[in-house]
Amino acid sequence: MSSMLPVGPPSSLLLPLHVPQRLLLGPGPSDVSPRIRAAGALPILSPMAPETFQIMDDIKKGIQYAFQTQNPLTIAVSGSGHCAMETALFNVVEKGDVVLIGVKGIWGERAADIAERIGAEVHLLTKPPGEAFTLKDVEKGLSEHKPSLFFITHGESSSGVVQPLDGFGELCHRYNCLLLVDSVASLGGAPIFMDKQGIDILYSGSQKVLNAPPGTAPISFSEAASKKMFSRKTKPPSLYVDMSWLANYWGCDGKPRTYHHTGPITNFFTLREGLAILAEKGLEPSWQMHRENTLRLHKGLEALGLKLFVKDPELRLPTVTTVSVPVGYEWKDIITYLMKNHSIEITGGLGPSAGKVFRIGLMGYNSTQANVDRVLDALRDALKHCPKSKI
Amino acid sequence: MSSMLPVGPPSSLLLPLHVPQRLLLGPGPSDVSPRIRAAGALPILSPMAPETFQIMDDIKKGIQYAFQTQNPLTIAVSGSGHCAMETALFNVVEKGDVVLIGVKGIWGERAADIAERIGAEVHLLTKPPGEAFTLKDVEKGLSEHKPSLFFITHGESSSGVVQPLDGFGELCHRYNCLLLVDSVASLGGAPIFMDKQGIDILYSGSQKVLNAPPGTAPISFSEAASKKMFSRKTKPPSLYVDMSWLANYWGCDGKPRTYHHTGPITNFFTLREGLAILAEKGLEPSWQMHRENTLRLHKGLEALGLKLFVKDPELRLPTVTTVSVPVGYEWKDIITYLMKNHSIEITGGLGPSAGKVFRIGLMGYNSTQANVDRVLDALRDALKHCPKSKI
Repeated sequence: MSSMLPVGPPSSLLLPLHVPQRLLLGPGPSDVSPRIRAAGALPILSPMAPETFQIMDDIKKGIQYAFQTQNPLTIAVSGSGHCAMETALFNVVEKGDVVLIGVKGIWGERAADIAERIGAEVHLLTKPPGEAFTLKDVEKGLSEHKPSLFFITHGESSSGVVQPLDGFGELCHRYNCLLLVDSVASLGGAPIFMDKQGIDILYSGSQKVLNAPPGTAPISFSEAASKKMFSRKTKPPSLYVDMSWLANYWGCDGKPRTYHHTGPITNFFTLREGLAILAEKGLEPSWQMHRENTLRLHKGLEALGLKLFVKDPELRLPTVTTVSVPVGYEWKDIITYLMKNHSIEITGGLGPSAGKVFRIGLMGYNSTQANVDRVLDALRDALKHCPKSKI
Repeated sequence: MSSMLPVGPPSSLLLPLHVPQRLLLGPGPSDVSPRIRAAGALPILSPMAPETFQIMDDIKKGIQYAFQTQNPLTIAVSGSGHCAMETALFNVVEKGDVVLIGVKGIWGERAADIAERIGAEVHLLTKPPGEAFTLKDVEKGLSEHKPSLFFITHGESSSGVVQPLDGFGELCHRYNCLLLVDSVASLGGAPIFMDKQGIDILYSGSQKVLNAPPGTAPISFSEAASKKMFSRKTKPPSLYVDMSWLANYWGCDGKPRTYHHTGPITNFFTLREGLAILAEKGLEPSWQMHRENTLRLHKGLEALGLKLFVKDPELRLPTVTTVSVPVGYEWKDIITYLMKNHSIEITGGLGPSAGKVFRIGLMGYNSTQANVDRVLDALRDALKHCPKSKI
């Protein structure tokens, strides 16, 4: 049959799909484990099938465990971690609300951008990349601006900082403020206790420690956050992430589930398996594994003469390590060398840390001694062979 | 290691994942073909890897072919078809804009809801489910309300209607109005010509005729739509689907790509394969296959004494068929019988068609003579064994 169509089939699409095998030791996505990849090849289910609801219930419970929360309003949104950030802000913030954003890397900048689009009055609390906020910093911001919401990143993957969170919930609540925490890059790798630490909204991603493909993002809301959310005067800007719809779709509101959107069912399978692997291993062993392998990496980097970007060892994120670009080298040369000669991905900085650091991720399935040794060997090789200017 | 955690690992998550094999002949998702399932099990790539960009370029070209458009601004959004609907409205509509929404099923209702959240002045043009709009209907609405955007569904999966589109673009443009078309349930199954028909914004989904898992949604913008979008006075409500960011991430703006969000890479693999299969087969043979198999289904349904819900044969969607619930039967009994005894999913109505119809989908990989015969046999069996009240 000869075609009369104005636009013909593209030739590049008629070639086979090419997906090389890599070792992804950047800040995420991390490698998807074989068990999770197998789940990604399963037959599809209807979004309204009882088996789908069972898998969604499993996901909900898995998130409650990973977050250490009893919140009934715990779901996965149908999008990336960025979509979860919007879900949090879109549902809890209304036009005119005062919002305080802790900015110590790119994620705070993005949260501020979203809050501004909502029409909130946005105030920034900033720290140079590589540092963390103290309770005193935050109390100053709370007393000065009287926000109804404070945003902070737990695992700041752009700078390699883990933000201590003890006391922040209590502090925020004393100022009648909800605490919103981004744990996309830290969940499962660094301890976090949603209920105990008084976190009101917590979200994460599927593609870091959980080793599932990107496309779903866990999120949970405390009773206080739910109250603010469900007593708002206006509808949230988005229907796609409107929590009154999503709470129903995820069986959180006690009513029969109705169709909202077609969830990414296959990604539910893979997220479910990522959460199951974490539950089987246990959070504490997972935290310990990340700590130990990252310490091994840190020692090895220092033995190579490299400098860790985060000065305070207590503030170093156990999932993503930032390394200062060594004097005399071009950061791009080293990254390219690792990819070309070792099929290992590490990345440069992002936002405020761009050009200053490499970022090396060891997350979940990828957090092994063997991978630490492999990336150290590759870096040693790169430092030997990449061009170095005289200083 | 004994755990001291307040929330323990959930027991249901420690059981194996259970995903039964079904034949999904509802309105979508349709079965994922073995080749596409295999793509879903491939190793992950970085969102900024050159191989990922190549796959995204392939997707863009595949969408241009499926849409029959030369628009450079053609991408897949990282969400469901619903997310694409929001992407269209969020980017092209500003607060105070006048928007006309054609409502002949649930999708128009949803579009109206989203436009209202933006703060647009929303007018509805309605048709009873099972019917389609005429040029005259639309011209009346355009001349009365002077909208800057008109929304219409091509494949109205809730009622089983395919909306004729010839002349609608020209008509809208005469009234200085952009034409936005939803082709989630029709793309690849019923002819559509974005450029020739003057469609300004067209979007679809991955999980219907393309047989990929849900989680990505093709979308394209004409030059006129891009002009309105990129000359707007305010930022779109969402950063996640802000087309100025997404155009860059998809290599549509001629600038180096920068990190925006972590796209659902694995879903890009599967969407790419779905589009490749369509390009290999060819659009015209695909349209013909859907038409023939659906006609075979229609004949078989009538031979069983069942009535098609859409009276005008020209308006029957070649992907999703609506059948009036036969007098004396409960619609739920028949659907449950098919699932329980034949592992076949067909569904009830949705929104305005709820309780009135069954919906049977034959999409892409599922559009075969064998599947037509299988669902007809199952229905024959169900009509024999399901309880029937005396009339």
